Amino acid sequence: MTVNTQKITILGASGYTGAELVRLIATHPSFEIVALSADRKAGKEMSDVFPHLRHLQLPTLCKVDEIDFENVDLIFCALPHGLSQAIVKTLPETVKVVDLGADFRLRDPEAYKHWYGLDHAAPALQKTAVYGLTEFYRDQIASARLVAGTGCNAATVQLALRPLITDQLIDLDDIICDLKNGPSGAGRALKEHMLFTERSTDVLGYAQGGVHRHMGEFEQEFGAAAGRDVNIQFTPHLVPSNRGILASCYLKGDAEQCHAALTEAYANEPFVIVLPFGQAPGTGHVMGSNFCHIGVTGDRKPGRALVTAALDNLCKGSSGQAIQNANLMLGLSETAGLMMAPLFP
Amino acid sequence: MTVNTQKITILGASGYTGAELVRLIATHPSFEIVALSADRKAGKEMSDVFPHLRHLQLPTLCKVDEIDFENVDLIFCALPHGLSQAIVKTLPETVKVVDLGADFRLRDPEAYKHWYGLDHAAPALQKTAVYGLTEFYRDQIASARLVAGTGCNAATVQLALRPLITDQLIDLDDIICDLKNGPSGAGRALKEHMLFTERSTDVLGYAQGGVHRHMGEFEQEFGAAAGRDVNIQFTPHLVPSNRGILASCYLKGDAEQCHAALTEAYANEPFVIVLPFGQAPGTGHVMGSNFCHIGVTGDRKPGRALVTAALDNLCKGSSGQAIQNANLMLGLSETAGLMMAPLFP
Amino acid sequence: MTVNTQKITILGASGYTGAELVRLIATHPSFEIVALSADRKAGKEMSDVFPHLRHLQLPTLCKVDEIDFENVDLIFCALPHGLSQAIVKTLPETVKVVDLGADFRLRDPEAYKHWYGLDHAAPALQKTAVYGLTEFYRDQIASARLVAGTGCNAATVQLALRPLITDQLIDLDDIICDLKNGPSGAGRALKEHMLFTERSTDVLGYAQGGVHRHMGEFEQEFGAAAGRDVNIQFTPHLVPSNRGILASCYLKGDAEQCHAALTEAYANEPFVIVLPFGQAPGTGHVMGSNFCHIGVTGDRKPGRALVTAALDNLCKGSSGQAIQNANLMLGLSETAGLMMAPLFP
Amino acid sequence: MTVNTQKITILGASGYTGAELVRLIATHPSFEIVALSADRKAGKEMSDVFPHLRHLQLPTLCKVDEIDFENVDLIFCALPHGLSQAIVKTLPETVKVVDLGADFRLRDPEAYKHWYGLDHAAPALQKTAVYGLTEFYRDQIASARLVAGTGCNAATVQLALRPLITDQLIDLDDIICDLKNGPSGAGRALKEHMLFTERSTDVLGYAQGGVHRHMGEFEQEFGAAAGRDVNIQFTPHLVPSNRGILASCYLKGDAEQCHAALTEAYANEPFVIVLPFGQAPGTGHVMGSNFCHIGVTGDRKPGRALVTAALDNLCKGSSGQAIQNANLMLGLSETAGLMMAPLFP
Repeated sequence: MTVNTQKITILGASGYTGAELVRLIATHPSFEIVALSADRKAGKEMSDVFPHLRHLQLPTLCKVDEIDFENVDLIFCALPHGLSQAIVKTLPETVKVVDLGADFRLRDPEAYKHWYGLDHAAPALQKTAVYGLTEFYRDQIASARLVAGTGCNAATVQLALRPLITDQLIDLDDIICDLKNGPSGAGRALKEHMLFTERSTDVLGYAQGGVHRHMGEFEQEFGAAAGRDVNIQFTPHLVPSNRGILASCYLKGDAEQCHAALTEAYANEPFVIVLPFGQAPGTGHVMGSNFCHIGVTGDRKPGRALVTAALDNLCKGSSGQAIQNANLMLGLSETAGLMMAPLFP
Repeated sequence: MTVNTQKITILGASGYTGAELVRLIATHPSFEIVALSADRKAGKEMSDVFPHLRHLQLPTLCKVDEIDFENVDLIFCALPHGLSQAIVKTLPETVKVVDLGADFRLRDPEAYKHWYGLDHAAPALQKTAVYGLTEFYRDQIASARLVAGTGCNAATVQLALRPLITDQLIDLDDIICDLKNGPSGAGRALKEHMLFTERSTDVLGYAQGGVHRHMGEFEQEFGAAAGRDVNIQFTPHLVPSNRGILASCYLKGDAEQCHAALTEAYANEPFVIVLPFGQAPGTGHVMGSNFCHIGVTGDRKPGRALVTAALDNLCKGSSGQAIQNANLMLGLSETAGLMMAPLFP
Repeated sequence: MTVNTQKITILGASGYTGAELVRLIATHPSFEIVALSADRKAGKEMSDVFPHLRHLQLPTLCKVDEIDFENVDLIFCALPHGLSQAIVKTLPETVKVVDLGADFRLRDPEAYKHWYGLDHAAPALQKTAVYGLTEFYRDQIASARLVAGTGCNAATVQLALRPLITDQLIDLDDIICDLKNGPSGAGRALKEHMLFTERSTDVLGYAQGGVHRHMGEFEQEFGAAAGRDVNIQFTPHLVPSNRGILASCYLKGDAEQCHAALTEAYANEPFVIVLPFGQAPGTGHVMGSNFCHIGVTGDRKPGRALVTAALDNLCKGSSGQAIQNANLMLGLSETAGLMMAPLFP
Repeated sequence: MTVNTQKITILGASGYTGAELVRLIATHPSFEIVALSADRKAGKEMSDVFPHLRHLQLPTLCKVDEIDFENVDLIFCALPHGLSQAIVKTLPETVKVVDLGADFRLRDPEAYKHWYGLDHAAPALQKTAVYGLTEFYRDQIASARLVAGTGCNAATVQLALRPLITDQLIDLDDIICDLKNGPSGAGRALKEHMLFTERSTDVLGYAQGGVHRHMGEFEQEFGAAAGRDVNIQFTPHLVPSNRGILASCYLKGDAEQCHAALTEAYANEPFVIVLPFGQAPGTGHVMGSNFCHIGVTGDRKPGRALVTAALDNLCKGSSGQAIQNANLMLGLSETAGLMMAPLFP
């Protein structure tokens, strides 16, 4: 640890994104975890909740109100949707916040209410939150106090499409995104259809028809990027592999132009890699890492492009992105603690 | 076994579709296996090649030229593409043939050459072959001597779309089919990317851009159904579950009309089940069976329909379909030996 | 269906063993399901609870007290442990019962109380129950009114060892059984460690040290077979494959003698197959079937034998066994409806 | 990178242990890869062979004889068994060598010939090699020029048992080790039974009866530790999860004494963690890491102990161990580059 260790707290440490933050921070050169909260599991050791973290010296899980926030540089909120709002507004102004949930992703309170069914409890804060898609909000993130992590699907699809939408290289009225998602995106909550027995040999579409909550992020972000409404078709599917999102995006546009634009857009990005034209990325090649692989192919049908993007939903899609943003907010190297290679096989 | 037992031979019994034929025939009420060929494994017992069939009394694997075809009612050819042609043309006319490979699927020799890179070795036979999509060629199959089983992807997508294409309920110039495929479709051949280690945590698109050989079937069949050229976009993806194809078809058309048309088209089909509007089928719910589940939803984008179809590639997509067709060719009940329920979980 | 159709009811149809019974009965030649109970899901259709059974015409799920038992030949009780006792004792004497739970497995009420922590609610019935290990209780089962299905682990280990224990071919004081178990054995209840995310890449021992409830069955049955106390070491492990138990039994005895004894014991059994000496069975080769494969090898350490047995816990280990027993109780062929081949791959 | 960067070469970089070395070295603070060999894939980029390493700047794969060994501090040999011998003996004395294969594990040339069927090509070198089980050969490794990495099974079982054998806390004539192994241990070679389709739902014992080559290591090492012959029973089983070995060791001895001895033996080890008495380790909790978790329980049968150990075969069982040893050989901190937390879920 360096002299300038940053004191870090994780709220909601007993979920998968909480555990992933701890995993990443374990080898981060300048983060020190000073508190971990988990309301229902307060009093337990992290190693009882997540035995894979047993080798680490970690604070005992506690309730949020037991934390002394004066002693904290930055908080990661990995709480269920709806809980961050109330807590973040009570924190001292000196504490920086990266929220991994959905509470601050949508700037428009009406949109928030539409997609999440709630009046926002901290509308003033909501206005100040910076959207956490690092590659497109880097400067604002660096100076923000509150950063709202993106949805994991939203990250994948935006990395695949955003440069194409901004440059209007594709038909904005005909964007179809078919996603294949690992079950870890659903978290650790007990649901019958998330049992091993139910998922291990099944492939199943869900949230069909444009009802997935990440649609709100696409509306907001693609609308802003294009300067007009953009309404994509978006369908996720559960596949039997813990981690990973593969987004297959069917587009109308020139495939080689799309490839050139993506290649240029991400030329200097440390974590986004555009494959040579015609190559396809796989989720197995980004697992456990903060990398996103993007492939572009054409189709024998002229004027069609297929852009495919793969990332690890728990890492680049959530906790890795959160640390990338925290690094910026704390004046550290953006890649600090995040250069681990993917785990394969 | 009844008096009218049909004498059955399987050529290419050492592959997965061969084994699946044996599995199904094991409980078929009127089929008796009289010979099993496997050139490289001739002389071995089937139980050495497939220990799961150990409880069955089966003929020793032999070479094709050791078989007395006079004693055979029907042959299933489960040979690699390109090998059936030469063999089938030497068989006695009295033997009926169901080919599970690609050799007789395409009626046009030019199309065959385009997709398979070969001049056809039995062009006269090719003309007489009936395409084996039972639900749409039932009468011709019943009176055929040679039936060409469909590709497993081709079966899935056609069951999902054919009634919509015939009735022109959807925009024929904008059909996008994204498939999620179990690795068993690739057969038992040794390929590095088919190792357990490579596939078990990976999701990966392949044959992107319209180069998959089943495209030839879509051209032929959808063209005939529509009375015009139909050029779909088709992209398969490997997912880590042995069996199953889930086809997600993104269409322009009225979703409820599509649902009504599919429901009506398959109302009397024993194996094709259209789910209530808005429900999604999963591959885990058809595994090991001859059923195909089809779901239809709309999208918040008006005029869009999502049709999803699930089947077991080795069964309804290949060997189950083959037996369904053989039943018709032999004057048996179409469902004989095929009503086993899916295996879940 | 034949004239002599047997009217069947399943209590507890919303669990995995209930669904497996329905799957098997779907192609049984003489069973007709007349009622299906599931207390918490009463009023639902089976296809809503288990979409893979959608093709079947089945009674709507109901509460137990809505069933007219006068109209029933045989009941399968697939209820959670402890519930069968109270219900079975209220049924008309004319109804035969196969219980798939643990309520009637242990003849000694003290042993029952020791392993299940409850006083038995129907001790008179308990005395009359026949233990459902078909291969060893065939005659008693054929004339029984109430048969108690074995535990799935208990079935596997007994098929592997019982002939060796009866003949005292092995050291009865030194039997070690290491099991590898598919998660479906834990049922459909919601438990965190049974989520896909938790199980899909983990191998984990549980119930270590001799505390698993199936120990009671080993005590009772091996004790009776040997005419003395037999206390085995038994450790199950969860592995990431839905179905299947592989029991590796480390024994002191002559391996070839053990192989000969098992081969002889099961020579005429329709579902138990002893492999040639030195071959190893796999769970993948019995999946979805009622077969049990047993392999025997020696060790370079003289006087040691390794007996390995594989079966499908939901089928031969539970619902398949139950139907095998019901066939006997109803005077049908023991193998009726049970000869389906395993599903591979 | 620090000033004292160590120049590293990997021979056999196109296999899984080669790729794992690269993964680990990617975030190692003082290693720099200067050459990567892969004879059949020479001329290719590592990113073509292993797309998950695409973000790294790596040397193009070359043939061994293209490497300038003068410029190398340490070589990792990840070659198939039998190939290292010939190559290592031609290397300059100044180059340190960590061999991940079996060539130098057995000190006795007769034992080597017995287990590997070959006369050793470099018997003089073989005598100088230090056995690479870090926790027990730390000092010799630190001063060695050539270290022979252990087999992955050998590492797991020795970590579980070695302190108990040295202290003779258990009956040395009755040690039974049942292993559950991820398929990655078999490497990337093309074998039918290693296809995804064959392994993904199967659990299968192999090398039964004491014929596995790692037996040679147990003989050598346990014999030396005990001062007498020790002949364990050892049976590995393939389970469907890429990485991980779970060794369940059935012992005669006092379980609490065993727990105390293991706890004490590993009290200061950075990578070996003994769980509280009665807790069971899982492979899912060490995946991707260099940690080994060990659990001890008793049995209701007095005088029996069950010691269970879990590690990642590619990391702590092979490449992680290799780097741990290389760190010592190069005078670095033993844990450098190895403190990444396991990946879960």
